[in-house]
Amino acid sequence: MKNIADELIQKIIQKKNPSVIGLDPNLEDIPSCFKLKASSNTNPLEAIKDIFIHFNQTVIDAVKDIVPAVKPQIAYYEKYGSEGLKAFEETIRYAKQNDLIVIEDGKRNDIGSTAQAYADGHLGMVKMINGENVSPINVDYLTVSPYLGSDGLKPFIDVCKRYGKGIFILVKTSNPSSGELQDQNTKSGKRVYEEMAYYVNEISSEVMGHSGYSSIGAVVGATYPQEAERLRKIMKKSIFLVPGYGAQGGKGIDVVTSFNDDGLGAIVNSSRDIIFAHKKRNNNLVSEKEYFIFVNQAAIDMRNDIVQALVSTGKGDKYK
Amino acid sequence: MKNIADELIQKIIQKKNPSVIGLDPNLEDIPSCFKLKASSNTNPLEAIKDIFIHFNQTVIDAVKDIVPAVKPQIAYYEKYGSEGLKAFEETIRYAKQNDLIVIEDGKRNDIGSTAQAYADGHLGMVKMINGENVSPINVDYLTVSPYLGSDGLKPFIDVCKRYGKGIFILVKTSNPSSGELQDQNTKSGKRVYEEMAYYVNEISSEVMGHSGYSSIGAVVGATYPQEAERLRKIMKKSIFLVPGYGAQGGKGIDVVTSFNDDGLGAIVNSSRDIIFAHKKRNNNLVSEKEYFIFVNQAAIDMRNDIVQALVSTGKGDKYK
Repeated sequence: MKNIADELIQKIIQKKNPSVIGLDPNLEDIPSCFKLKASSNTNPLEAIKDIFIHFNQTVIDAVKDIVPAVKPQIAYYEKYGSEGLKAFEETIRYAKQNDLIVIEDGKRNDIGSTAQAYADGHLGMVKMINGENVSPINVDYLTVSPYLGSDGLKPFIDVCKRYGKGIFILVKTSNPSSGELQDQNTKSGKRVYEEMAYYVNEISSEVMGHSGYSSIGAVVGATYPQEAERLRKIMKKSIFLVPGYGAQGGKGIDVVTSFNDDGLGAIVNSSRDIIFAHKKRNNNLVSEKEYFIFVNQAAIDMRNDIVQALVSTGKGDKYK
Repeated sequence: MKNIADELIQKIIQKKNPSVIGLDPNLEDIPSCFKLKASSNTNPLEAIKDIFIHFNQTVIDAVKDIVPAVKPQIAYYEKYGSEGLKAFEETIRYAKQNDLIVIEDGKRNDIGSTAQAYADGHLGMVKMINGENVSPINVDYLTVSPYLGSDGLKPFIDVCKRYGKGIFILVKTSNPSSGELQDQNTKSGKRVYEEMAYYVNEISSEVMGHSGYSSIGAVVGATYPQEAERLRKIMKKSIFLVPGYGAQGGKGIDVVTSFNDDGLGAIVNSSRDIIFAHKKRNNNLVSEKEYFIFVNQAAIDMRNDIVQALVSTGKGDKYK
């Protein structure tokens, strides 16, 4: 049985890069060159589907030799209903075809048979009326939100075990107001996010890989490096998915506390700064070829920034 | 500008029924009569789409004169990817055509532009490349999960204001383990779900209707009637969406604490007990006509049970 944490760790080492590119195709920010062909389509939602597929395939082509994984954020696709979801499915297919691990950012959450439906549909398999089993979405990892407690998480964990998939549970998110709920002091002396971290650590032992890491990971924002340092000690076996690098303000040096001393245990995400790299050059009329070069360079710059920070703090041996 | 809380309150009074039917089409539980026609379709996901549309239209036909609203749970649709989402879109269209309010149970949550994408796509409008605005999903209400704090909720509230839509924020959910996070005692002396309730009450004043109720509602489980009583006092202006009635164990008498003294301020959901009413009779070989009668009767029984409980506690004047 495959273990997705092992696969992710292996790909991070192989590509010497603990970072992931977010595929968040915000229509307004997509350069015009991707919109020209589709503008003749009389079905406007289908036109957007075609633009997203073409755009994401170009991003994937530009980063596939550099990063171990991509992270499509499903909100940007389901925003356009079923046509948007077609683009999402096709993007996942293309990413896997190019040997990338796919982390779906969906922050799904529910209980009982509903949580089971999310888990089966996104990570596992579902039965057709002819008895056949298919995987409609088939991502490797899904982010999940923990407000409902453990019986909201159990169906996801079961599917991770059965199909060798993984989840990242929101623990400490990167946004300014994350503390309103997550930083509440509880009577036990811990904060809510620390209670969550102890829980994640407890269940992570259920789905361990040979790498020493679990398929149950945690979302820990780059914008809170001190909290990350404490959380790293609580959840030793969990891989951290680290948002907040780049556009949200986090730098390479801010993410080092999310890594263990061996330089593993975290994967840092950037979305806008990479896939809309042309905007930094104020160039919306970029050609596809130029766009490809900008994205490729931005992904390399991100890798170098993070690796440099890890090396400077003695955690970079695996990336030299 | 319409206000969805006013519309919901008006429909509840008009139909003398503060309950909502959950449209959670779990394939295994759908009677065979709905599967026969679709079984000749060679595309198995498309077959499921057709079954769901046919099944949901029958449910809607059977309950449209009884209930003010339906609550499709999107997990059961997106489980089947883009084909499932087509069935979801068609179900919403049909429910609205039959003058029902549509509450999407999606428990969506994210921050910044991602939360905006969810809000625009599910509740609001999105711009096409030709400049046209369309509403791909177009529900009246969406449930949202609060783990990320206020900047995860603000984009949803803005869309509610702009388009006259509503949200129900998870406060105290109906499941057994809901207390693990939600019941944590904080140093302020309140529990986490009470902190959430005070926050919901604060923001609910931003989107008030003439009815005295806000478009910002709260999810409060039927399985915790004492907590509901306390929460009712904290969130006076919010409509409670009350899951946990029926299959999860809640009875009419358990939900009365979720209502204000005027008999308003809550809408009670049941899914499985209504849409799979044939299973109680152990009858999977039911005909469409028999199925229709069972569902219709189950919806009436639920209404009567809740109204009777409200009358018996002096809150039922509006329903006599």
